[in-house]
Amino acid sequence: MLATSKPEPLSNIDRRSLLLGLTTTLVATSLAQYAEAQAQTQTAAEPLASWNEGPAKDAIRTFVRSATDPSSQTLVPPEDRIATFDQDGTLWVEHPIYTQAMFALDRVHALAPEHPEWRDRDPFRAVLTNDMTAIAKFSETDWAEIVFATHSGMSQEAFLQIVRQWLATAKHPRFNRPYAELVYQPMLEAMRYLRANGFKTYFVTGGGQDFVRAYAQKVYGVPPEQVVGSSIATKYEIRDGKPQITRLPKLFFDDDHAGKALGIDLFIGKRPYAAFGNSTGDREMLEWTGAGEGARLKMLVHHDDAQREYAYGPAGGLPDTKVGTFDQALMDEASARGWTVISMKNDWKHIFAFE
Amino acid sequence: MLATSKPEPLSNIDRRSLLLGLTTTLVATSLAQYAEAQAQTQTAAEPLASWNEGPAKDAIRTFVRSATDPSSQTLVPPEDRIATFDQDGTLWVEHPIYTQAMFALDRVHALAPEHPEWRDRDPFRAVLTNDMTAIAKFSETDWAEIVFATHSGMSQEAFLQIVRQWLATAKHPRFNRPYAELVYQPMLEAMRYLRANGFKTYFVTGGGQDFVRAYAQKVYGVPPEQVVGSSIATKYEIRDGKPQITRLPKLFFDDDHAGKALGIDLFIGKRPYAAFGNSTGDREMLEWTGAGEGARLKMLVHHDDAQREYAYGPAGGLPDTKVGTFDQALMDEASARGWTVISMKNDWKHIFAFE
Repeated sequence: MLATSKPEPLSNIDRRSLLLGLTTTLVATSLAQYAEAQAQTQTAAEPLASWNEGPAKDAIRTFVRSATDPSSQTLVPPEDRIATFDQDGTLWVEHPIYTQAMFALDRVHALAPEHPEWRDRDPFRAVLTNDMTAIAKFSETDWAEIVFATHSGMSQEAFLQIVRQWLATAKHPRFNRPYAELVYQPMLEAMRYLRANGFKTYFVTGGGQDFVRAYAQKVYGVPPEQVVGSSIATKYEIRDGKPQITRLPKLFFDDDHAGKALGIDLFIGKRPYAAFGNSTGDREMLEWTGAGEGARLKMLVHHDDAQREYAYGPAGGLPDTKVGTFDQALMDEASARGWTVISMKNDWKHIFAFE
Repeated sequence: MLATSKPEPLSNIDRRSLLLGLTTTLVATSLAQYAEAQAQTQTAAEPLASWNEGPAKDAIRTFVRSATDPSSQTLVPPEDRIATFDQDGTLWVEHPIYTQAMFALDRVHALAPEHPEWRDRDPFRAVLTNDMTAIAKFSETDWAEIVFATHSGMSQEAFLQIVRQWLATAKHPRFNRPYAELVYQPMLEAMRYLRANGFKTYFVTGGGQDFVRAYAQKVYGVPPEQVVGSSIATKYEIRDGKPQITRLPKLFFDDDHAGKALGIDLFIGKRPYAAFGNSTGDREMLEWTGAGEGARLKMLVHHDDAQREYAYGPAGGLPDTKVGTFDQALMDEASARGWTVISMKNDWKHIFAFE
């Protein structure tokens, strides 16, 4: 009835704005979307250009075909196309310590003038005197203390700003480049290839959810709502008449190991069809992904390239590292469950875009 | 280089599958998407057909125009178009008690044979003897005991199935219709109108996240990953060699009051541009939404229609209700902050689709 009644002036404007709104949505050309479109053009030409031919590249292509070919027995409905990615060691360099740990150490230095008591108190003393031997031996409690001291007390907005400013200037000690350049080019291609085939790509990281959200859209094309990670508790309060979400020095959710499967269920509520990890912290995510029916892609990045990046785990080297534990038990489980192990040395033609 | 090199047979198949994959994505016609497309056709003709002309309908149209007209000073980038909705009392009927509470009571009856000890123990005794006076006086602890007894101990999949089976047969005591039919038609139209204008519509409910995920896609067109709600703790375990996520009798996240603003930040990581609620539990969500810059829509559903639905809150009636508290203080804050109060009686031409 209403649809055929004589339109009032306001309705006319509304229809116009509705159409314009849709047009805006469709032709939107924000910088991020432009970059994504450019990347997809490259993707269509050779989606996995930085991968050498071999079992890893084959596994990705075979999976995408099985999940998206309309004639496939294992076709996945578009709304269920979920792919999850660990970050540290899977999407970017995690050695010598996690990027976020580096950030925390730098923040201790930056905040030291406000905390004279830190000078004589470990673990802060060790950080402020650059006692690398002590830092290498930090316990989880030490790290928790450093993280809470540097990651809480401010609003969420303020924290995101601090992370972005740090990332704009901080450089990796070995590569002497901004951390955002230490993203693995083959993994970026895999993410884009999956997105081009209708997959929503999610981070499922043991790292801080808000830390990663500060740059995930810009660096990886992944929006904040698709970043699942560990989080600290927050508090809602009115400050100077304005609502604020304040970060508290308390762990809220530990998105690692079993927490990754739980985090996927909590934040996404769908079982992934593809999951990428590189350490024992990703085991349950890959198990959970693999336990679903149909086409499922489970991949583990194995750091076996000391020359171009690092070699640790079964490939040897760096035995005392606390990051990215990839032990023989994980290799055995990968083999038993049919997970594909990516050899950085053999499967990746280029590791970084700058190579 | 690779893009111009002679294509191998495998690459050909890949390109084809890539294109087919994209086509599938674009023309996908799952039932839900078909329904959404149909609804959008209606939306384009008269997006808010069940709304009477007036300040509430105007507020929605004005907001959408301000947020989506390319010439608007307050144009919102497509990726930031987030709208959040409370469910109980905002999107569907919450009287005489929340639908999920009704589900819990029915589950107590269903599970009673396995729990002979419940016969003599409150709050279960009251439920099993249909002691409505006692049920009406249940404390939060009583409800927590009932919810944990009926919502935990099973896998997530099993729980979703139980909810779906219940919803397929249970009927509302007054309307004698399935609960899914007690959705407010004007609100469904508002959701679709916003989606047609590029907004992602999220639930931000005090109710159970998994309970709502069981039907949100089918009933509202909202996928699981866009349902933020209260949740109970879960546990990852291997049962009979298969990973399972098991529900535990413990609250994990309380997505109500301040929890709604925190839940938005935790799950979405973006401040909404539009938020809809109906009670004091939605206050912080509306405050948080309203504290952002630019065009922001903040709406409160006021139940003032005893004839077609219910009248409570400042409209009088049902003074002892424990659901949907809409007190004078909330009305005053709405007035002070410029939130739009929706009068069900005056603003809604139809409340339900079956009218």
